[in-house]
Amino acid sequence: MAKIALTGDRPSGKLHLGHYVGSLLNRVQMQETHRLYIMIADVQALTDNFEHPEKIAESVFELSRDYLAIGIDPAKTTIFIQSQVPELTELMVYYLNFVTLARLERNPTVKTELAQKGLETSVPVGFLCYPVGQAADITAFKAELIPVGEDQLPLIEQSNEIVRRFNHTYNTDLLKEAQPLLSKASRLVGIDGKAKASKSLNNAIFLSDSPEDIRTKVFAMFTDPNHARVSDPGRVEENVVFTYLDAFYPDAEEIAALKAHYQRGGLGDTTIKDLLNTTLQTLLEPIRERRQTFARKALCDILQAGTHVARSAAQQTLEEVRRVMGLRYFD
Amino acid sequence: MAKIALTGDRPSGKLHLGHYVGSLLNRVQMQETHRLYIMIADVQALTDNFEHPEKIAESVFELSRDYLAIGIDPAKTTIFIQSQVPELTELMVYYLNFVTLARLERNPTVKTELAQKGLETSVPVGFLCYPVGQAADITAFKAELIPVGEDQLPLIEQSNEIVRRFNHTYNTDLLKEAQPLLSKASRLVGIDGKAKASKSLNNAIFLSDSPEDIRTKVFAMFTDPNHARVSDPGRVEENVVFTYLDAFYPDAEEIAALKAHYQRGGLGDTTIKDLLNTTLQTLLEPIRERRQTFARKALCDILQAGTHVARSAAQQTLEEVRRVMGLRYFD
Repeated sequence: MAKIALTGDRPSGKLHLGHYVGSLLNRVQMQETHRLYIMIADVQALTDNFEHPEKIAESVFELSRDYLAIGIDPAKTTIFIQSQVPELTELMVYYLNFVTLARLERNPTVKTELAQKGLETSVPVGFLCYPVGQAADITAFKAELIPVGEDQLPLIEQSNEIVRRFNHTYNTDLLKEAQPLLSKASRLVGIDGKAKASKSLNNAIFLSDSPEDIRTKVFAMFTDPNHARVSDPGRVEENVVFTYLDAFYPDAEEIAALKAHYQRGGLGDTTIKDLLNTTLQTLLEPIRERRQTFARKALCDILQAGTHVARSAAQQTLEEVRRVMGLRYFD
Repeated sequence: MAKIALTGDRPSGKLHLGHYVGSLLNRVQMQETHRLYIMIADVQALTDNFEHPEKIAESVFELSRDYLAIGIDPAKTTIFIQSQVPELTELMVYYLNFVTLARLERNPTVKTELAQKGLETSVPVGFLCYPVGQAADITAFKAELIPVGEDQLPLIEQSNEIVRRFNHTYNTDLLKEAQPLLSKASRLVGIDGKAKASKSLNNAIFLSDSPEDIRTKVFAMFTDPNHARVSDPGRVEENVVFTYLDAFYPDAEEIAALKAHYQRGGLGDTTIKDLLNTTLQTLLEPIRERRQTFARKALCDILQAGTHVARSAAQQTLEEVRRVMGLRYFD
């Protein structure tokens, strides 16, 4: 039987090429071999965006548009909205009893995120607790595999700890531990070469970017500041144009030859940027066009159908959890 | 219009005379003048009893039996089970975003409880967060008045802080602050005179105690250790028998005369204990008999009906909260 896998995104912006190589392509493959759930994690997004919920609401639809445009097939994959499956919050509240504060504060993923947000001294409890919410998400769908990056491994570990404590406390094997499925793709750098591509740093090329935006971003890419004239030798390491060509140009040998030419001198930035621009325009044009084919109504129908499926699964797990905990009074 | 009031108990044991004078009598009066909700707080009870949920399940029925036996009328008062209104957990999860960890750790009520339980260094997050759950309970029913003891005032303050932050963040006046209704009754000491009457200290007389149990407990009461012979003068302060006579004997003048007699000597402990025993037997006999008249099926019917009413109210609030937060995608 196909293994159950759960993945998803916080709806806090549109998806970009970093997501495309980092997780989206993988999902398109997984839906052929796995029972795949993709969660639009709006409740989790609220934990650090609760002051701007309107941003989340709009992103939910942009995100689902992106999924469908890159080839996620709702006939194979269950796409759903987290907040529309309220059973998840109920499970989360029960699981909060199985985690100590000290344990949550030690979570390396959360610690890093808090430092990035400057929230070490005034962490909102909702944010601190989101790993417990993830345990609810994972167990609700009995997910066996969670595609993650290395930095998210502590979240799976936290979820599995809750599973073990719950099962041990109630002398059951109801909840199942999940395995991480580590992404092989390395993180895509931003067009400035400075960090990973991200919406907040405004250094990403979005799946929905216009042809002009794509071209502008490609021509603004960081290359080699010492490669002043075409005849100068240039560096290909930390040269964002080559990083993107490695990631998106289909012929690796051709890129190897271009790199050698660039390193010995005689290959201008304009030439390689033109090549990358053409590559990305070819990749993104059909995605952008497909994005336009989904009207709001069609998106709603797909999300409602997926949410219905997800809710049924979560309800069943919740019923089982309630039974184990003795929280069924009217049987 | 009658004001809405919310009160309740954690189902972690049967009710005793301390509850009777401290809160139950007050509720019987309030149901005539207020729109009263009584919540059997099983989700909250789990925060410090999650390892023994079977204790909670049984207590739910004992508790509702106690309510009905002392005169709570389900035609006037909504008695419901917290866990059967899952909207409360959803509200709680949203409210977690409006509270910092530092704020929760400062809560005097929670700090005291943690110290009592020896949990300062390994506090379960569920327990730390229960004041946020209470904010969900209070606001879900739009409660305006919360009958509390002085030690619980910080919980109302925490709830009102969440209300203000929520309303301010979403530019709304949807949520209402609640007022505490301070109990005038002082706490009833245990029969050992050492602390308040409580189940865990095994020093309480329960509403369901048998006549023999009542008599045994009355005759085991702490009086005045220096009152060795009947003719000796005795102390009435910190004398548990007089404390209970003050609380339960209907004629205050008669008790004043007895106290004077006891203080000048010549009144034996057996005499005053006999009087208290008769007083408590008279009070508790009809309650105990009434307890027996409710079959499990009848209790289930009453609790299901109350839960249905409570759930409708909570659903309406949740819908309003979701609308304000923009978490309605399919309208």
